Amino acid sequence: MDVTQIDTVLPDPPAFRNSAAVPRPGLIEALLAVVGPGGVMVDPEVTVAYSRDMMPLAPSGLPLAVVFPADTGQVAAVVRVCAEHGVPIVPRGAGSGLTGAANGVDGAVTVVLTRMNRILEIDEGNRLAVVQPGVVNLTFRSEVESRGLFYAPDPSSYDWCTLGGNLSTNAGGLCCVKYGVTTDAVLGLQVVLASGEVLRTGRRTVKGVAGYDLTKLIVGSEGTLGIITEATLALRPKPAAPCTLVAAFSDTEHAGEAVSGAIRAGLVPSLLEIMDATCIRAVQEHTGSSILGDGEPPAAILIGQSDSGSTVGRREMDLLEQVCSSAGASFSYVTDDLAEGRLLLQARRAVLPSLEVLGTWLTDDVSVPRTAMAALIAACQEISADVGLTIGVVGHAGDGNMHPTIVYDATDPAQVAAAHDAFGRILDAGRALGGTVTGEHGIGRVKQDFLRSEIGEIGIEVHRAIKRALDPTGMFNPGSMFD
Amino acid sequence: MDVTQIDTVLPDPPAFRNSAAVPRPGLIEALLAVVGPGGVMVDPEVTVAYSRDMMPLAPSGLPLAVVFPADTGQVAAVVRVCAEHGVPIVPRGAGSGLTGAANGVDGAVTVVLTRMNRILEIDEGNRLAVVQPGVVNLTFRSEVESRGLFYAPDPSSYDWCTLGGNLSTNAGGLCCVKYGVTTDAVLGLQVVLASGEVLRTGRRTVKGVAGYDLTKLIVGSEGTLGIITEATLALRPKPAAPCTLVAAFSDTEHAGEAVSGAIRAGLVPSLLEIMDATCIRAVQEHTGSSILGDGEPPAAILIGQSDSGSTVGRREMDLLEQVCSSAGASFSYVTDDLAEGRLLLQARRAVLPSLEVLGTWLTDDVSVPRTAMAALIAACQEISADVGLTIGVVGHAGDGNMHPTIVYDATDPAQVAAAHDAFGRILDAGRALGGTVTGEHGIGRVKQDFLRSEIGEIGIEVHRAIKRALDPTGMFNPGSMFD
Repeated sequence: MDVTQIDTVLPDPPAFRNSAAVPRPGLIEALLAVVGPGGVMVDPEVTVAYSRDMMPLAPSGLPLAVVFPADTGQVAAVVRVCAEHGVPIVPRGAGSGLTGAANGVDGAVTVVLTRMNRILEIDEGNRLAVVQPGVVNLTFRSEVESRGLFYAPDPSSYDWCTLGGNLSTNAGGLCCVKYGVTTDAVLGLQVVLASGEVLRTGRRTVKGVAGYDLTKLIVGSEGTLGIITEATLALRPKPAAPCTLVAAFSDTEHAGEAVSGAIRAGLVPSLLEIMDATCIRAVQEHTGSSILGDGEPPAAILIGQSDSGSTVGRREMDLLEQVCSSAGASFSYVTDDLAEGRLLLQARRAVLPSLEVLGTWLTDDVSVPRTAMAALIAACQEISADVGLTIGVVGHAGDGNMHPTIVYDATDPAQVAAAHDAFGRILDAGRALGGTVTGEHGIGRVKQDFLRSEIGEIGIEVHRAIKRALDPTGMFNPGSMFD
Repeated sequence: MDVTQIDTVLPDPPAFRNSAAVPRPGLIEALLAVVGPGGVMVDPEVTVAYSRDMMPLAPSGLPLAVVFPADTGQVAAVVRVCAEHGVPIVPRGAGSGLTGAANGVDGAVTVVLTRMNRILEIDEGNRLAVVQPGVVNLTFRSEVESRGLFYAPDPSSYDWCTLGGNLSTNAGGLCCVKYGVTTDAVLGLQVVLASGEVLRTGRRTVKGVAGYDLTKLIVGSEGTLGIITEATLALRPKPAAPCTLVAAFSDTEHAGEAVSGAIRAGLVPSLLEIMDATCIRAVQEHTGSSILGDGEPPAAILIGQSDSGSTVGRREMDLLEQVCSSAGASFSYVTDDLAEGRLLLQARRAVLPSLEVLGTWLTDDVSVPRTAMAALIAACQEISADVGLTIGVVGHAGDGNMHPTIVYDATDPAQVAAAHDAFGRILDAGRALGGTVTGEHGIGRVKQDFLRSEIGEIGIEVHRAIKRALDPTGMFNPGSMFD
């Protein structure tokens, strides 16, 4: 998001032209007074770009205005203006989300945090950083890596998603099997509440248990409780160069047995990914790379890494190779060569772009007990045959978080309906296996019914009570996560 | 807590004899109907044993009754009975807490969870366990270790504290520098709400971000939001045998520099503890052991461990030794000998019993940025001189969580007042250094003013709003954590 580019298409002063909602006299003028003319967009031809994130199935609307505050004071002032005018707010980062949580709402103001993109502090002696929400994940990780430190959460959109969005969705990535999701890296937050007041949560120390854990309540709340304007993040030492394993299986069940075997053997790889035949074939064809083999793809490939360093990393991957062989791997290979390791990771990361060549992709996000991974893949194959759409399964095998990805023709209503059907049936299958309907993407506007099924009426009522407690008028992100 | 022993001192049927509160007609009968005659205690000579935990300074009252439910259904029924009678509830585990959070309240029922002490499941393929709240930490860790697994949180009372208390206080221990506090090991909870309804939070999968993180909101809420009746806990592979370092310093500032240096060097020890001269001398005199040296104690000793295993663990401790030497250590020693390592840990764990010989101990719990550890120790020495009481500093140097321990004569009102004064001044000093007033013990009934200072009025108001949302009549643990 380059704000300066967008500014050039803004009328000056901006005319109120939003047709999708009742005009709110004085609202736009008040917003302009807060953030200045470069920080408010109202032209529907422009604001429509903020209607959606990366989830095609979620409902969306046209923002009444899109506002780009430059600091916490401006965010607080925007919240107060919207509260006075009775206008809801949708907080938004880069728009890389996969649940529609940042989708526009007719008649609401979308507050985009990308202008607040400064790394405020990196404290190497205490291994922490203080950041604004608009910092791009990759920018941040590169900056801390240049100082010998490491920020673990690495969602697949890490080269364009923002830390604020990562916090709001409690994003994960490939690192989670060893390092957890975003919440595990957050020490404290600054949050603008519905009252326009600024709440500080957490601390700058490694440990701290003073009061309720408001930090971890806000993380993953998808912008429904407040707007995150600053975060204090825990850093780790930069891990050692990885040792990498790749193993192929003629049967996904054998791959599942290898993952369970790795857990039982006490391994904690820094990464353990799975790709099924559909994904392997798509990557082979799209990238032309032979790193995953040339001919007919195997049923599944596991890619594992250890960042334990030196002989330990090698020993861990050698042990993983033994586990894979015992589970019936048709091929396996361990390498300390960093370029080879990188190529394998690139192939893994190429799955979505490669599937995109075949049609519109719709990626699901279901997390199952690790022992149930193979059963989930089998269920996806059945669903694929049933609905008549390609479903490639790629995922974080080490923690059981799978991303079955449905490929369909978005111009064909029957295929759209079939994709929608498959999406839900995969979630049901995951739940039936003891899993959850989201491991790292969140609920947003696309999984509300599934959240209700998973946590039940008592759970939903507790959500509503907390929402009412912090946001009594329901101004933040209405219609997202739950009603 | 052996319930059967206590049962024998119960009158049958129990007579209502609590003089400290207004009798509630029918309450005891209703409680007896729920939990049976062996599960209700009302004799003040018996219930007085449930007035206090291990924090001498916290206010306390006499429970109206002490109830021992046997399962979740009984807990829910007890909550409904108390709600009907307008009687508050104090949830309690073993009573090892250090903030008075489980102290009795005049006119309230104390619900003790020690009878619910079963390990319900250990799932080795998914590295998780399901437990009841009354399981003793050591019982649980021994059981999982016998299966090659590891439960990290190890508060110093681990041989008698219960997992339910650990969850309610978000307890820590020596492991935290590498493995975090209790919240980092919790996947899900079963919680009885103020309505008597049973809430399930979280999941059985490694990852899961469905809805608000109610699990981590309940963990550390000190029994103010509900009663935890079951927990799903994440396990780790059993770590390798430790390599141990001990280093002595003639100046605590040098020890502080060694800790900062270790962080900057990228070390993540599995344990890194500090003891000051007062603690070392007390242990030398009380235990008669010469493991910490024989003569005049050094200003500080650091004990470090790595559980990375084989050559890596040794290399990490060798590096830590270099860091200590560069920081000016007067002595240092690295050993792979498990018995030596165990003796050093025993000396560390002997600090509180050794200080107890000198008087009543009052242990504080302040967490500071690691770079500020030496400054905190210096502040404690000043406060000690000022108030005229011995203060020994022992703590988790690796994460900056210090336990300055004040020794005083509890029969001397002047010393009690001085101890109280020192307790607060240590917290203020910690906060002034960028720290928090509790790293792992919690707020309870002894640090409420300090919580308010730390999180401010907006923070307190958010706490109140969440409390009202989940417990509208204020039935759970009134007067604990905040008003």
